[in-house]
Amino acid sequence: MELKLSNIKLNNPSQQALLVKNLYLSCDPYMRGRMRDFHGSYIPPFVPSKVLEGFGVSKVIVSDNPNFKAGDLISGFTGWEEYSIITKTDQLRKIEPDDHIPLSFHLGLLGMPGFTAYAGFYEVCSPSSGEYVFVSAASGAVGQLVGQLAKLHGCYVVGSAGSKEKVELLKNKLGFDEAFNYKEELDLDAALKRYFPQGIDIYFDNVGGDMLDAALLNMKIHGRIAVCGMISQQSISDPKGIRNLSSLIYKRIRMQGFLQSDYLHLYPKFLEEVSAYYKQGKIVYFEDMNEGLESAPAAFVGLFTGKNVGKQVICVSHE
Amino acid sequence: MELKLSNIKLNNPSQQALLVKNLYLSCDPYMRGRMRDFHGSYIPPFVPSKVLEGFGVSKVIVSDNPNFKAGDLISGFTGWEEYSIITKTDQLRKIEPDDHIPLSFHLGLLGMPGFTAYAGFYEVCSPSSGEYVFVSAASGAVGQLVGQLAKLHGCYVVGSAGSKEKVELLKNKLGFDEAFNYKEELDLDAALKRYFPQGIDIYFDNVGGDMLDAALLNMKIHGRIAVCGMISQQSISDPKGIRNLSSLIYKRIRMQGFLQSDYLHLYPKFLEEVSAYYKQGKIVYFEDMNEGLESAPAAFVGLFTGKNVGKQVICVSHE
Repeated sequence: MELKLSNIKLNNPSQQALLVKNLYLSCDPYMRGRMRDFHGSYIPPFVPSKVLEGFGVSKVIVSDNPNFKAGDLISGFTGWEEYSIITKTDQLRKIEPDDHIPLSFHLGLLGMPGFTAYAGFYEVCSPSSGEYVFVSAASGAVGQLVGQLAKLHGCYVVGSAGSKEKVELLKNKLGFDEAFNYKEELDLDAALKRYFPQGIDIYFDNVGGDMLDAALLNMKIHGRIAVCGMISQQSISDPKGIRNLSSLIYKRIRMQGFLQSDYLHLYPKFLEEVSAYYKQGKIVYFEDMNEGLESAPAAFVGLFTGKNVGKQVICVSHE
Repeated sequence: MELKLSNIKLNNPSQQALLVKNLYLSCDPYMRGRMRDFHGSYIPPFVPSKVLEGFGVSKVIVSDNPNFKAGDLISGFTGWEEYSIITKTDQLRKIEPDDHIPLSFHLGLLGMPGFTAYAGFYEVCSPSSGEYVFVSAASGAVGQLVGQLAKLHGCYVVGSAGSKEKVELLKNKLGFDEAFNYKEELDLDAALKRYFPQGIDIYFDNVGGDMLDAALLNMKIHGRIAVCGMISQQSISDPKGIRNLSSLIYKRIRMQGFLQSDYLHLYPKFLEEVSAYYKQGKIVYFEDMNEGLESAPAAFVGLFTGKNVGKQVICVSHE
């Protein structure tokens, strides 16, 4: 990634396009997948030398589109730059400003990661009250909401994360019943047996690799694994083999990959419910905010070593 | 395994037990799992020096149970021996003799493997007419029925097997659209791309290992993998790692392990439908019949090198 300087004309976008000022940009692990030439992915690779594309919260400066006017706040795909011309406007969402909800939350709690947690938990995990739920990368953009939704649903929830600070956050601020630092565990199978002596009903998998293999050994009969991400394998060209899949048979486990984009019909319900939970104080949400576009490359790279605590966002401009 | 000689009293079983004469015994790969001490399996390990237990077709000689009488033909768990005392009678099934259906078929087509195919295909694979179906170990006890049910359902069906003879059987007798010998393929991914240029909707996995890894690369979006068995890994203490699970996410694949025993409420429907299909000539079924109890150990071991062609059965006695 490199930072380039160039000019943009601040007037007259054409063909229903918008000229926007980018306020907040989202650093999301899925973007790593767009940095390789991968046949079969759900989203095309980035084009080298072109501006990176990602989710952002932006303010409309000039609009040639009847659905948007100058001053509107929007979320959706934009460029990693100060100003962008947005031509694909059909998936943009208009933000209703709300004094009680930070604008940047439309990239996390109320954006793609939050909706991933919501769709994955309710639509893929088939949860029941009283079930035992394990979440990996539990303090991350998705995991922290999965755990809180599971608690509100009446589940027992344990999360794993990669630092003492994150474990404290999970236990003391995010309401997880238990949490552990996977980097301090020599034997992940033993760790899971310690926290789930009766086994795991639902594993919400954000990491893949060794943790998935250990979870497979600790699932209960008719358990469910929502495969949301494999961040531990993202930057590895030779991915780790998963060896315990025969558990799927013995324990009749359903393992399901998913993308939030398959559930967009539920987005309005999600937005209403999760906004209400937040405003009622029933859930909280942690962001890791970096200031300035120039901080974006390091913040993005930091995702893959767990440098961020909570949802990683870049503030390009406060207004 | 060793063959032992001893006597059994041919009268007066007590406590609702049956004395039966075993006619046919079933060699099933799942029995391999009972030959190790595996915590978490769905069925307890065999006890060394005790008679092996397995599915059989037997004739009642003496009954202390009001539900069975001398002369009844039954299928269910019995011993790998000439005569057995059966005390657990609640899961035995009485066979209605039918001149058009061989008795031994109650261990294959109409027994556990056939019902596995039926429950797995209809209840786990969520098939639609016109979909592309891949079956591994396709000429085996389960696979041959999966492929035929899929054809009757209007699917395009390709099977893999481990010999030229089996491939011919699949194409010429079992009605598969295509079949290939996986042992002749240097690159399983390339083989699947050749047979499924548009991708696979449903993979009915009987083998695990390299074939599963290759299938993951060739699934279509929203594909389903029914995980029925992993015979390629059964005798390996250090199972092969599966490296392509990230496909589950990109392609939103559902991968589900299952056991037929979870679907027993469907057994009567299965028995009626599949018996009718067979008698109408809409499906066929191939057995590999060995004669004599002394042939059982080698026949069982042969399952794991693909020596059997079709469902492996041992004939202990013709009457």
